[in-house]
Amino acid sequence: MRFATLPNGTPDGRLHLVSRDNARAVPAKAATTLQAALEAWEELAPALEAEYAALNAGRAEGSVAFDPAKALAPLPRAWQWLDGSAYDSHGELMKQLVGFDAKQGLDILLMYQGISDRFLSPTETALFPSEADNIDFEGEFGIITGAVPMGVTAQDGARHIRLVVQINDWSLRGMAAVEMKSGFGVLRCKPRCSMAPVAVTPDELGPHWRDGQVDLPLEVDFRGARFGAANGHAMCKGFGDHVAHAAYSRDLVAGTVIGSGTVSNANFREVGSSCIAERRGIETLDLGAPKTPFMAFGERVRMEAKLPDGRPLFGAIDQAVAKG
Amino acid sequence: MRFATLPNGTPDGRLHLVSRDNARAVPAKAATTLQAALEAWEELAPALEAEYAALNAGRAEGSVAFDPAKALAPLPRAWQWLDGSAYDSHGELMKQLVGFDAKQGLDILLMYQGISDRFLSPTETALFPSEADNIDFEGEFGIITGAVPMGVTAQDGARHIRLVVQINDWSLRGMAAVEMKSGFGVLRCKPRCSMAPVAVTPDELGPHWRDGQVDLPLEVDFRGARFGAANGHAMCKGFGDHVAHAAYSRDLVAGTVIGSGTVSNANFREVGSSCIAERRGIETLDLGAPKTPFMAFGERVRMEAKLPDGRPLFGAIDQAVAKG
Repeated sequence: MRFATLPNGTPDGRLHLVSRDNARAVPAKAATTLQAALEAWEELAPALEAEYAALNAGRAEGSVAFDPAKALAPLPRAWQWLDGSAYDSHGELMKQLVGFDAKQGLDILLMYQGISDRFLSPTETALFPSEADNIDFEGEFGIITGAVPMGVTAQDGARHIRLVVQINDWSLRGMAAVEMKSGFGVLRCKPRCSMAPVAVTPDELGPHWRDGQVDLPLEVDFRGARFGAANGHAMCKGFGDHVAHAAYSRDLVAGTVIGSGTVSNANFREVGSSCIAERRGIETLDLGAPKTPFMAFGERVRMEAKLPDGRPLFGAIDQAVAKG
Repeated sequence: MRFATLPNGTPDGRLHLVSRDNARAVPAKAATTLQAALEAWEELAPALEAEYAALNAGRAEGSVAFDPAKALAPLPRAWQWLDGSAYDSHGELMKQLVGFDAKQGLDILLMYQGISDRFLSPTETALFPSEADNIDFEGEFGIITGAVPMGVTAQDGARHIRLVVQINDWSLRGMAAVEMKSGFGVLRCKPRCSMAPVAVTPDELGPHWRDGQVDLPLEVDFRGARFGAANGHAMCKGFGDHVAHAAYSRDLVAGTVIGSGTVSNANFREVGSSCIAERRGIETLDLGAPKTPFMAFGERVRMEAKLPDGRPLFGAIDQAVAKG
């Protein structure tokens, strides 16, 4: 199934089913918000599946052309957003840039809790206090869970994954090193994220949902050129392990969003990067100093992961940054 | 004004006004939940004040005896919980124990975002996976804001403080050092917090709300003895500064909860501590090794800050721990 949320004047918006080609949308009948659907997934899924089948068959009454530019984040707010950092090559490059080795050889997953009272819409301008904070995008994949009991195993954790999403995790790099060195972690350097317009059930990825990971390239376009197309299937551990990690000492509320961290591949010189900081890390390695500037107000970034035959999946995030 | 929330089968519960002696409660008419009150505070406050005055005058229809043992957290869930660490003597002692210097001489406030999809009720048993994780309580004060614009100054930040609360920020100390050293900060070592039953407007503290801090001792009782009574008025910066810190790169949603971190005083040998880890830090300093064990399943802790004449304010947190 594919879901989008369109504005209706409430913080949670109005849940819509989106057709498999992302061309048509129809208000969901079984649930009015994605949060409500997630809270009663097992009960509501059959009805939602039937509505989705009708939409794809051209039999859904009241369907309209789907305009991603009008969509909110599919889950416009969440009770919990936990962001990981699962790509080892990203960690290696960040170490070059920030001078901070997060893993330090430890066999742990990295994860922090971030702001989730609102996710930015996929085409919403992101407002920040100052260019001097080194504004960066971070292309990620994420999952949304149902309710997860405390102490779940990685295998059982994977079974609680309801939806897969694509995320831009905005970062203010200038503040990251101090916040990380304090041990209290990232807060001011992590403003609100955005989500691509369409959240999909894992089966929509077909064979490209593999080991609890998204086996698709995340195409990032910036400053008129392809900036990166790293493949999502390079996480040190899949999303099932991330669910279990998060649920060690807490049950997870339905609608918990867990992010992969910046998608990154070991052959970063060929496939490019999903954030500016990583490219600056490569430049530091290769040239002795970074040269790609962080974002200026007025610039924009586009990111989208499609199916290999070019069919759309999550839709695109396409955002500008401006002074807030 | 004083507020409590009583269970009504919904996650947000039913907002009540509580009399100035914490003896009587009446369902609020102007707002059914505390979140709703916080979202429209300026509009609703006059009506709530009138209801509060009627309750204190014995003229509130439908008032009942207030039973704190039945209360939920006054804000049973929040879109954002940001915990600080504002007591320098606590940081010094934690450095002894964890071997991690969070401030490192930096002139920054410490703050992370924690789990807030539910706050535990004041007398609810806290469930944890294992005693081996070194279960600890942390007595704190906190504030709840209205909506705060991004970039607010410390002075203006203080004006957005709507309520003062008392918090027990449960900690699993065994996991803290690794999580802090990773730079991603505390997550698994910080399960859900609890809140004392009554949230109060700052004016309820009279002269004991000073410099955006709670100038009252937090009495902690544990293992049949007074464990600590550190005064809240020893923060490196007051709550107004904490609001501004949090709002640097985000506006704050109404109902944002900000914590002080474990209340601690420089004369900790006289006044005692608000967490076990701190006492273990003192023992390490004085005896060369810690001797006070962390909590065992079945043990409980009580914490309450009263007005100097003994009148109740927030009510008591009184919780046991058990295997989850």
